[in-house]
Amino acid sequence: MNELSPNPAAIVIATARALIGDRLSTNDAIRQQHGRGEDTTTPTLPDAVAFVETTEEVVEIVKLCHQHGVAITPFGAGTSLEGHVNPVRAGLSLDLSRMTAVLEVNAEDMDCLIEPGVTRQQLNEYLRDQGLFFPVDPGSVCTIGGMCATRASGTNAVRYGTIRENVLGLEVVLADGRVIQTGGRTRKAANGYDLTRLFIGSEGTLGIITKVRLRLHGIPEAMTSAVCQFPSLEAAVNSVITTMQAGVPVARIELLDEVQMAACISYSKLEGYKPVPTLFLEFHGTEAGVVEQAELVEGITSEYGAEGFAWARDAESRNKLWKARHDAFWACLAAQPGSRGIATDVCVPISRLADALLGCKRDIEESGLMAPIVGHVGDGNFHTVILVEDGNPQALERAWELDKKIVKRALDLGGTCSGEHGIGLGKREFLEAEHGVEAMAVMRSLKVAMDPKGILNPGKIFRN
Amino acid sequence: MNELSPNPAAIVIATARALIGDRLSTNDAIRQQHGRGEDTTTPTLPDAVAFVETTEEVVEIVKLCHQHGVAITPFGAGTSLEGHVNPVRAGLSLDLSRMTAVLEVNAEDMDCLIEPGVTRQQLNEYLRDQGLFFPVDPGSVCTIGGMCATRASGTNAVRYGTIRENVLGLEVVLADGRVIQTGGRTRKAANGYDLTRLFIGSEGTLGIITKVRLRLHGIPEAMTSAVCQFPSLEAAVNSVITTMQAGVPVARIELLDEVQMAACISYSKLEGYKPVPTLFLEFHGTEAGVVEQAELVEGITSEYGAEGFAWARDAESRNKLWKARHDAFWACLAAQPGSRGIATDVCVPISRLADALLGCKRDIEESGLMAPIVGHVGDGNFHTVILVEDGNPQALERAWELDKKIVKRALDLGGTCSGEHGIGLGKREFLEAEHGVEAMAVMRSLKVAMDPKGILNPGKIFRN
Repeated sequence: MNELSPNPAAIVIATARALIGDRLSTNDAIRQQHGRGEDTTTPTLPDAVAFVETTEEVVEIVKLCHQHGVAITPFGAGTSLEGHVNPVRAGLSLDLSRMTAVLEVNAEDMDCLIEPGVTRQQLNEYLRDQGLFFPVDPGSVCTIGGMCATRASGTNAVRYGTIRENVLGLEVVLADGRVIQTGGRTRKAANGYDLTRLFIGSEGTLGIITKVRLRLHGIPEAMTSAVCQFPSLEAAVNSVITTMQAGVPVARIELLDEVQMAACISYSKLEGYKPVPTLFLEFHGTEAGVVEQAELVEGITSEYGAEGFAWARDAESRNKLWKARHDAFWACLAAQPGSRGIATDVCVPISRLADALLGCKRDIEESGLMAPIVGHVGDGNFHTVILVEDGNPQALERAWELDKKIVKRALDLGGTCSGEHGIGLGKREFLEAEHGVEAMAVMRSLKVAMDPKGILNPGKIFRN
Repeated sequence: MNELSPNPAAIVIATARALIGDRLSTNDAIRQQHGRGEDTTTPTLPDAVAFVETTEEVVEIVKLCHQHGVAITPFGAGTSLEGHVNPVRAGLSLDLSRMTAVLEVNAEDMDCLIEPGVTRQQLNEYLRDQGLFFPVDPGSVCTIGGMCATRASGTNAVRYGTIRENVLGLEVVLADGRVIQTGGRTRKAANGYDLTRLFIGSEGTLGIITKVRLRLHGIPEAMTSAVCQFPSLEAAVNSVITTMQAGVPVARIELLDEVQMAACISYSKLEGYKPVPTLFLEFHGTEAGVVEQAELVEGITSEYGAEGFAWARDAESRNKLWKARHDAFWACLAAQPGSRGIATDVCVPISRLADALLGCKRDIEESGLMAPIVGHVGDGNFHTVILVEDGNPQALERAWELDKKIVKRALDLGGTCSGEHGIGLGKREFLEAEHGVEAMAVMRSLKVAMDPKGILNPGKIFRN
């Protein structure tokens, strides 16, 4: 490297700075903030961070990186649990979190058009007056662009579907800077290849999402939450399976094991609950409908020995409950200070949930590690947060062993290694086992067709 | 062409015959049956028809065609309305209609694995004893493989989603004969590119679907149908818009204009109804829930001047009603004997439905052609069947002009040229107007990546 041939990243940085001024940052602290998400990966620093504000800026920066073969790693709220935002080949971290405009709300069609940096909390705040809401709810304060990229879901998916079912269309900047619109405003269409679904879950490896058209839902006439506590994990899981098989349209059905419940009671100051396996439930519908649903589930859970089916009808109690559920990850970390958490994310067919979850519990007990279990069990999806002392490589190794055991069991039961967190860096090795060599080859051929230079979030999804 | 260099199709035919015997047919009548679907396209004959019975046979035949560059056009029940099954570059028509095994039903997970030639009627017959059903219902006797290929929907989609939302995974034979499994058995997953959705709606141009894993639903506790008749088309459409915006979870809401209603009364011997704009409705839920829904809708429709909100609770009356709805296409053809029908298939955002549908009605009246209107209006999707005397080129030209007018208005209103019938040959010219040049270029690049020799259903979706 000499002055006559500056390196490609340096050219990109200089040109991008001319374009967006001091929103192109090489500041150390900012680069470090963009080195990883909320996971246990080793941070890798980008050469610079570009805080973009418009599609046009994204286009210019992508063209620049394409011309010079410099990697681009999109960044939203930085809440990834699988290393999605780590710039493993340096280059630019493309921070879209300032693109926060709500561009359209069509109340009569229940859709809206937003920029990708809008968080679900911001959107729901914006929509509240119109009697509408956006149901997909991964818990954390994440951007909707990031949710699209990772095919996010969360607590409400059991009733309202994941982000996949709630995106009508996208604007995407391709690897060479071309811009496409996918999908449309209609509830359905049979109009060529489903490009929208191709980008949902592609983790920034096929294009940069710069606008999202979402499907919205009417705020239900009535909402009731409930908590019920069980004598055993098995009783709680079997209640879930029976409820789902009975076709009760629960809006949320979340399981916390006794370790997670103890952590939440302590962290969120929940009063009147015991540290035992617990279900948090929510019912949406008409006034009569939610009573009907809740009574059905109360009947099922009491047959499995649950006690204290406590209803919360008022918004304040409901919000406190779901805040506690959403803070479960932080409650875990607080339960063992100085730790980071490896979040597992398996999902299995509902009939296999007891095998997967109880087997996982045994594995945790055998490992001697602390790993609370919490899950979107109505979808067959649950997490353990394996707590690892920061900077303890032996503990980290034992944690990864446990992680692999849990994933292997789920795959053996017909499940997937990721229900909602995505692949990123952390789950790449499981993907071939799950899909087989030929399906992976098809995914690679799509990647090559869409991003022949391999500049878009390199190193993610595929191991090589 | 001489004996020393036989043409590629001849080689494929000879080799395939050695493989599947007389299930490889060059019989004229059979080739003609495979020359087109139920549409007005000019039939084009395949060199031969291969009636396959296993994935292995599909693999061998695809490999053979790939090696020799011979076109393959998949064929199911032959009910396409857009020229999907026409072998426009001859070669083989690959008839999958004999692959009719139901391989698995997992009642506890509400999923099943079937071969692509199973029809929805066969599947529902098979499932009935287990309290389960498969809701996607395009009306005709079509194969589920064909429904996947064309992203079909139909009357129940307003409540249960289209085939896109009801397929969990696929087995697909790729253009070079490799076999992949897509998706899985879980309700959700964030595990790499969404290959399932890539094939759903790809119209046989990216791979041959040889197995389908479907999501099933519990047969509702209660089902009620209703019919209500309106003083004007506008009143009927506005009732639909208000019902949808009120969030009533109707299972079906179908509109028939006075021309279609007259045709159905005559064809299906419906008694007690007038030839006026009419809604056919169905409500699914608990006993209390369906009453609640029906009363809500009755209230809405009566405000728009509807009369005679007639409920049908018994299965026999309901079946007669829906049989009449499903026979609407045949009722149209019978209303003008010696005709074929061009079915339009636009879909618009629900708030634009009145503009689209009433504008369409004016266009029809100005054209002087007979074209009954019928539609899945809860999704903003409606059809006209433009009746054209068989073998009358002037009438056909006027019909296509009308078709273009209807599509153009729908696109101008933010809609799509195809809600559920697909693109095939008939809608190709509209696709670029709808998606733009760059999105079409992305679709083409996917086609090239997946089928570099262009042997899979050539000429469909893309004009060149």
